[in-house]
Amino acid sequence: MTKRAVGVDLGGTFIKAGVVDDRGRILSRVKIDTQYARGPDMVVARIALAASKAVERAKLTWARIGAVGLGSPGIFEPSTGIVSMSPNMPELAGLELASLVRERIGRKHINVFLDNDANLAAFAEYWVGSSGDTRDLVLFTLGTGIGGGIVLNGDIWRGAWGVAGEVGHMNLFPDGIRCGCGNHGCLEAYASAPALARRFREAVTAGRPSSMAPLLARGVNVSARDIARAAGDGDRTCRELIEETGHYLGIGVMNMLHILNVERVIFAGGMSAAGDLLLEPIRAEARRRTMPLAMRNVEIVFSKLGNDAGLIGAGGWAMRAAK
Amino acid sequence: MTKRAVGVDLGGTFIKAGVVDDRGRILSRVKIDTQYARGPDMVVARIALAASKAVERAKLTWARIGAVGLGSPGIFEPSTGIVSMSPNMPELAGLELASLVRERIGRKHINVFLDNDANLAAFAEYWVGSSGDTRDLVLFTLGTGIGGGIVLNGDIWRGAWGVAGEVGHMNLFPDGIRCGCGNHGCLEAYASAPALARRFREAVTAGRPSSMAPLLARGVNVSARDIARAAGDGDRTCRELIEETGHYLGIGVMNMLHILNVERVIFAGGMSAAGDLLLEPIRAEARRRTMPLAMRNVEIVFSKLGNDAGLIGAGGWAMRAAK
Repeated sequence: MTKRAVGVDLGGTFIKAGVVDDRGRILSRVKIDTQYARGPDMVVARIALAASKAVERAKLTWARIGAVGLGSPGIFEPSTGIVSMSPNMPELAGLELASLVRERIGRKHINVFLDNDANLAAFAEYWVGSSGDTRDLVLFTLGTGIGGGIVLNGDIWRGAWGVAGEVGHMNLFPDGIRCGCGNHGCLEAYASAPALARRFREAVTAGRPSSMAPLLARGVNVSARDIARAAGDGDRTCRELIEETGHYLGIGVMNMLHILNVERVIFAGGMSAAGDLLLEPIRAEARRRTMPLAMRNVEIVFSKLGNDAGLIGAGGWAMRAAK
Repeated sequence: MTKRAVGVDLGGTFIKAGVVDDRGRILSRVKIDTQYARGPDMVVARIALAASKAVERAKLTWARIGAVGLGSPGIFEPSTGIVSMSPNMPELAGLELASLVRERIGRKHINVFLDNDANLAAFAEYWVGSSGDTRDLVLFTLGTGIGGGIVLNGDIWRGAWGVAGEVGHMNLFPDGIRCGCGNHGCLEAYASAPALARRFREAVTAGRPSSMAPLLARGVNVSARDIARAAGDGDRTCRELIEETGHYLGIGVMNMLHILNVERVIFAGGMSAAGDLLLEPIRAEARRRTMPLAMRNVEIVFSKLGNDAGLIGAGGWAMRAAK
């Protein structure tokens, strides 16, 4: 295993990059615009630029770097590094992104490993994060959508086409509301940040009291983060809605425990801001519904790595994959 | 890998055993009473006896056998071979069953490998069954309960405590009816054979027509198999109930595809008798709800090995594990 790699976190607006060392420490940080509107060639060039800047900023040369790991939302063919689906950068679909970035960097010894950002974050949790001494874990990322990553035996489980870990699309209510994916009743449609905001609007419209009702009445877009803050300040409706979110997520956790019997389930993403108000109901619901044997030694926790998990995982995975 | 192993299928009433060769063929078959009522020591002795008889009946000696594989309903600690839970033989709990059987057989070179019967059946499907050229699959066993087995990378996935693959306890309706496991709304509570029989009784009681209504009125216990037969003969209510079972199972399949992205899902067990009346709605529901990428190359099929899967898997797994 090489001692340093560049991790790159590719988003539709920004590219973040950094050199990661073999203990998961971030040695440099770079953030530049993706310039997606200028087309895929530009995106490839920008990724290579961010990576080079990260090397430079760490006062290193490419000779001291083992590989590049590249994470992004979307689905990527594990064997080829081809973009199958990129929700926020649809023009990348079909592109051999990993090869293109590799060519653009143009260093013979530098291989580029492309993966889903939640997969890489899950790997980071296993490697230097909240996994303790377990080699198996499930990560739920709570944000605009609900993504996930699965690590089994210390390895990312991607499945045949890189789709594995789509925990947000487990079914919660077969005849439930329509999800962005087209199906009805997905966990994501009930427990994502926009779903929480929607349930808040519905609750207030139905007459439930909230300190933020006047804001809503003025047309302000109350976000999941606002709801979490108000809940922390004692707003009862907001608390109940976050608790309800926790119950939904706890059912998802229970499914994963019965299917994979992992001992560690980690939550990450913006909604972690709700803290124990969210985590306790998740734990309670999972405990209430899961067979005792499948609950043995189980810990349900928040990520310790936070926003850095993707970058650390990208670097760490690249080091591992490059050997 | 050795060329022959004994596979044993341990049930509460019968023990079935057979010599299995390295191509998954069964060379001999033995079936004896378990004599569970006479206590765990007797069960151990009976397992050893069944194994010896299987060797004898194949006209072989123990010297020509590499290992013994032992499958049973229940949950077994992967690392120790200790029985954690045996639903139909509760007195076996806590027993180091694999070691005890090994001692009882008393051949130095014969190791005994204990596993859940559905795990072993899943392995058999991977090895010589309906998995095609894929190395990853999920097996659903449809019977009194709904069990399951998961094979990833050609290996049984057991999880930390051997609980993995409890696909019958995925949640279908969070506020649904109570399941035998204590939770509410499990897939098993809606789609197992007894659940189908129960839904049939409810449907007829509610006035839906069926050729078997008079039987029910006379107090006859109409089974899932009876319902499948009547459905095949054109009984519309029975058809609809089996179709509904298929829809429930299709949701479970969809969950597994999104979580693990396997390409093969196999159904086995008594309810397979319903044939395409059951399989087509499973496929339709899975297709309707699953992301296209997670449906790529997916085949949802019945087991080709049928009742022999457990025995073949026990033998095959033992050969693999003994190396």
